Amino acid sequence: MSRNSQPAERSLTVPLESRSYPIRIGLGNLQDAGSEIARRTKATQAVVITVPEVGRRYGAKLARSLKDAGMRPHRIEVPDGDASKNLRQVKRLYNALIDVGADRSSAVIALGGGMVGDLAGFAAASYLRGVPFVQVPTTLLGMIDSSIGGKVGVNLARGKNLVGAFHQPRLVWIDADTLVTLPARQRAAGFAEIVKAAALWDAEFFGDLERDVDDVLSLQPEALLATLQRACEIKVEIVARDEREAGVRKLLNLGHTLGHAVEALHGYKKVLHGEAVAMGMAFAARRSEQLELAPEGTADRVRALLERAGLRTELPDFPRADYLRAIGTDKKRRDQHIQFIALRRIGKAETVSLTPAQILPAGALPRRKKARPVKAAGRKR
Amino acid sequence: MSRNSQPAERSLTVPLESRSYPIRIGLGNLQDAGSEIARRTKATQAVVITVPEVGRRYGAKLARSLKDAGMRPHRIEVPDGDASKNLRQVKRLYNALIDVGADRSSAVIALGGGMVGDLAGFAAASYLRGVPFVQVPTTLLGMIDSSIGGKVGVNLARGKNLVGAFHQPRLVWIDADTLVTLPARQRAAGFAEIVKAAALWDAEFFGDLERDVDDVLSLQPEALLATLQRACEIKVEIVARDEREAGVRKLLNLGHTLGHAVEALHGYKKVLHGEAVAMGMAFAARRSEQLELAPEGTADRVRALLERAGLRTELPDFPRADYLRAIGTDKKRRDQHIQFIALRRIGKAETVSLTPAQILPAGALPRRKKARPVKAAGRKR
Repeated sequence: MSRNSQPAERSLTVPLESRSYPIRIGLGNLQDAGSEIARRTKATQAVVITVPEVGRRYGAKLARSLKDAGMRPHRIEVPDGDASKNLRQVKRLYNALIDVGADRSSAVIALGGGMVGDLAGFAAASYLRGVPFVQVPTTLLGMIDSSIGGKVGVNLARGKNLVGAFHQPRLVWIDADTLVTLPARQRAAGFAEIVKAAALWDAEFFGDLERDVDDVLSLQPEALLATLQRACEIKVEIVARDEREAGVRKLLNLGHTLGHAVEALHGYKKVLHGEAVAMGMAFAARRSEQLELAPEGTADRVRALLERAGLRTELPDFPRADYLRAIGTDKKRRDQHIQFIALRRIGKAETVSLTPAQILPAGALPRRKKARPVKAAGRKR
Repeated sequence: MSRNSQPAERSLTVPLESRSYPIRIGLGNLQDAGSEIARRTKATQAVVITVPEVGRRYGAKLARSLKDAGMRPHRIEVPDGDASKNLRQVKRLYNALIDVGADRSSAVIALGGGMVGDLAGFAAASYLRGVPFVQVPTTLLGMIDSSIGGKVGVNLARGKNLVGAFHQPRLVWIDADTLVTLPARQRAAGFAEIVKAAALWDAEFFGDLERDVDDVLSLQPEALLATLQRACEIKVEIVARDEREAGVRKLLNLGHTLGHAVEALHGYKKVLHGEAVAMGMAFAARRSEQLELAPEGTADRVRALLERAGLRTELPDFPRADYLRAIGTDKKRRDQHIQFIALRRIGKAETVSLTPAQILPAGALPRRKKARPVKAAGRKR
């Protein structure tokens, strides 16, 4: 399908009573965001928080749209990269918000990926005890995962996402055309989270992905929009049942136990979150089979789909002791049981309580090539 | 009445659906706090945040009570004074919480005055996106005002309370015996907020205060507990109607327009918040009469009651231009209208929209003794 016969815009609602909000998904719809932002926030000015490259590409178009809708637009840039997701940047944002005279009739708009959404969202949650907030995600991961559900926050030097809030946006505005400029590696990493959503929640969607993976990754409009819509719907269904992550929302952590360990062992460098989740998810699927929780063949389908997206599915070559430590320290529970998300089959996940050693028994890792110090064990690309 | 025939403990509930919580008011009941804290938070450890002097006086008793209830108690101290209510201390608290391994099954307990409650409450609201929180106020202001309603936060260098959250406590535990060690000046400042609650909401209670002011300030048990109870009830009624300060809760700002100006002109030193509110409230009552909103005599009753508590009711001697600037900058609205809280009569307040110049017309201030630079215009005590 060519870009000239664009499929219709999609829309869904996150049903959270007085905090309900729409997710609007389109192609080339960025210039229409302003009027809906104005309607949803009643704001008289709009402070767009972004990173330099995204600001350069899309900032002017969004600002024009905000202006046309009667708002005074401002732009605040933060350095790109997960290292910006910290309290120092939050403080900088507070001061920048004061500089432009932001008050409760001002909207904070996150334009960018997950880092920008989490950081800007936490500033919006805490500035003046909360101002209206809008997500305009420009990465695949942002569109189908991090922009939905209200989890915002920053890292501390001693751990990821240790500080934050639940602050629901008033609107999530997705222009899938922004994915054109997203590097292929980030596109694949975002796709890993789509596979995750399907694997834990919707077998039919998983089948659709097996059929459409190439079209989605090459941004074929019909397949892309349908996939974005279904992935968003799954996130919405789960968040609506469990806004504060007391139960079913934990299933979204499929692949995260080992995924976080991989990220930690890499010092949160070299590996993207989605890439680490892909490895963790492939591991979780295999382990679910070994524990006789999932039928034979489950892991092969997960692994095959991830690999078709160009994602690595083997855990990187670190000693088992390092993995055990990384799993344990994650929640300071070395000897205690961890809530591990297992697959029962494609489309259904559940929480099982296991110790780190049960999650990662001896022999669960690929045979190591040679002993070498951890610091040299970085991922080869 | 002697301390041997103590009046019964009082209890009321802040009705906020799933976030409802009790306020327990007693004399000498600090040692019983632990079991109720355990019941309300389900926490396995309790992190008490306090200032050194309060910690020295009451920390051990509270820790014993927490331990008896099966929790591991920890204590974190922050320096006394409003200067501690900042992001640097919040970050220190995050790290201290990590040090003791605090997780979502840990309760944060604020033991102290309003500063401790606001600071500890914001740390509790944002650490791990929110952990259970309990208020154990030890100042009169804390007991009847700042511990109730979930407004928590810190100051930025450029303004007070610019950062924060709404994070309701699971329990407010009041041991009025802790007021014995509260300096008389702070006792009077807290009493100003009780007068405020009566003036804006409950004429009968205002009459009770006129009768009982001496007994309350000398901590006569029956009068003290009855007064604490009614003052808490008023705050609860208002918060329950308007948790997020969209409407009626704004009435609690009676006396704050000029009160904040007085604090700002003093550089937030030399004058306690309650003292500034007393001056602002006496002014608001007088201005309400001048604007023919309130009947003659209203202002005299407000002024007389505050003065019986030893509070100053005349605005300190700053130039009118300074007051106008302080009123205007408070919300960056020099030329715009401000929501001024006026009295309609004793027991009823309402919001009126006025410009700074209408709030403070020429001649509304006492005649100045002599021109002198602002920095020398500090309050004489």
